[in-house]
Amino acid sequence: MRYSAIISYDGKNYVGWQRQLNGLSVQEVLENALTKIFNSKTACTASGRTDAGVHTFGQVVHFDAETSIPTEKIPYAVNTALPDDVSMLYCEETTDDFNARFSAKRKTYVYKIYSSPHRIPVLNATHAHITSPLDIDEMKKTAAVLEGEHDFKCFEASGSVVKSTVRTLYSVVVDEKDIPFPEKLAFQPKEITITVCGNGFLYNMVRIIAGTLVYVGMGKLTVDDVKDALKNKDRTKMGKTLPPEGLMLQQVYYE
Amino acid sequence: MRYSAIISYDGKNYVGWQRQLNGLSVQEVLENALTKIFNSKTACTASGRTDAGVHTFGQVVHFDAETSIPTEKIPYAVNTALPDDVSMLYCEETTDDFNARFSAKRKTYVYKIYSSPHRIPVLNATHAHITSPLDIDEMKKTAAVLEGEHDFKCFEASGSVVKSTVRTLYSVVVDEKDIPFPEKLAFQPKEITITVCGNGFLYNMVRIIAGTLVYVGMGKLTVDDVKDALKNKDRTKMGKTLPPEGLMLQQVYYE
Repeated sequence: MRYSAIISYDGKNYVGWQRQLNGLSVQEVLENALTKIFNSKTACTASGRTDAGVHTFGQVVHFDAETSIPTEKIPYAVNTALPDDVSMLYCEETTDDFNARFSAKRKTYVYKIYSSPHRIPVLNATHAHITSPLDIDEMKKTAAVLEGEHDFKCFEASGSVVKSTVRTLYSVVVDEKDIPFPEKLAFQPKEITITVCGNGFLYNMVRIIAGTLVYVGMGKLTVDDVKDALKNKDRTKMGKTLPPEGLMLQQVYYE
Repeated sequence: MRYSAIISYDGKNYVGWQRQLNGLSVQEVLENALTKIFNSKTACTASGRTDAGVHTFGQVVHFDAETSIPTEKIPYAVNTALPDDVSMLYCEETTDDFNARFSAKRKTYVYKIYSSPHRIPVLNATHAHITSPLDIDEMKKTAAVLEGEHDFKCFEASGSVVKSTVRTLYSVVVDEKDIPFPEKLAFQPKEITITVCGNGFLYNMVRIIAGTLVYVGMGKLTVDDVKDALKNKDRTKMGKTLPPEGLMLQQVYYE
């Protein structure tokens, strides 16, 4: 029987989703847990890799297993064999032609930032810290420019080898809310979320988009700079790659 | 010159606010940083202790220092000497009769919970995980019973030695919001925040209140049980002490 499952993890202690020689991956701990629970060597395939330090709420995987454990009980069983920073949230039976990677149609990522003169420690595990105020209106205008089908070459980290760098972003949404603070600071601390839904993502694409929107918010780049870079496919003109801890794979969509 | 400052920390790696022989305290790392920056042994006093593992957004401290550093620059200087999980968010000059502990009039604590059949790893550092659904309406009714001046003996951990266990809670507010989840689970995961503002708190009081409200939400206790325990001062009839990582000292109020 083929199963699909939703996997949530805190990426801090892992080299990323995929098995690697240089450290512990989420794939390794999940496959070890599945193998233990099903008492048979079990491999699993995810919707896509996540980089070292990146979190997921809704990573999707598939695996094949023969088991007498009722499907709705599988997460309870598997979670007893997983470390606390990895969790199976849901499991269902699927068809043999379902492939967590190739059947995926869309993904939503959320990148979280907080802007504050000084670091706020409890946010550090899940947010990037920006020490200057950000112009959210300019960030929103720029986000709108990214929506649609474009060649996102300028938002791809170097060293990738994909055939096409054309992707479609269905939505790029920037939201902010005040972090209530009792005293008068140099500026009002805010939490900013960048939610990106697309049909596929290039290497480091969301983290470079987030870094570029931050540069726009700081006034280091303009909407027109981003339009030009999209046209000229020039990575060097865009913002920095923001750190992995602010990134979360929120949801993967299938037909 | 006496200064007051707002200190935010992630409590995970500390034995709590107060210096202790058995491990590293936030007080120790902050006093070390102040001593280094002011080049003179500097002690500081907080609004109150926090237990091992408890976080703060708005802990308030005072300290005396002679320095040429402009007051608004002190947080920048001190933060260079602090570890990443402790931060000074604000500093101002105050009067010699200001005492962060004895001048405090009110404090607000926030206790965060998530209810979900399975653990959600990125929430574990800042929330308690409850594996059953919670009846929020009953929790809200019970929270209202706790507001006002009461003898909170039944919400005090054993081993404390305070003269009076009478305190006033100005507000006890229970909020919930859905954690959006794409599939049909055994129940809808929710994030629940319990915000408590009072003139003072007994040992473990907020964590026992949170544990009691959870028991009410689970149907293990009723509003009337809580009324009775308040009257009979019976700790054994109330809920468990919830873990420290869900607790945050949000703000301390002075005149």
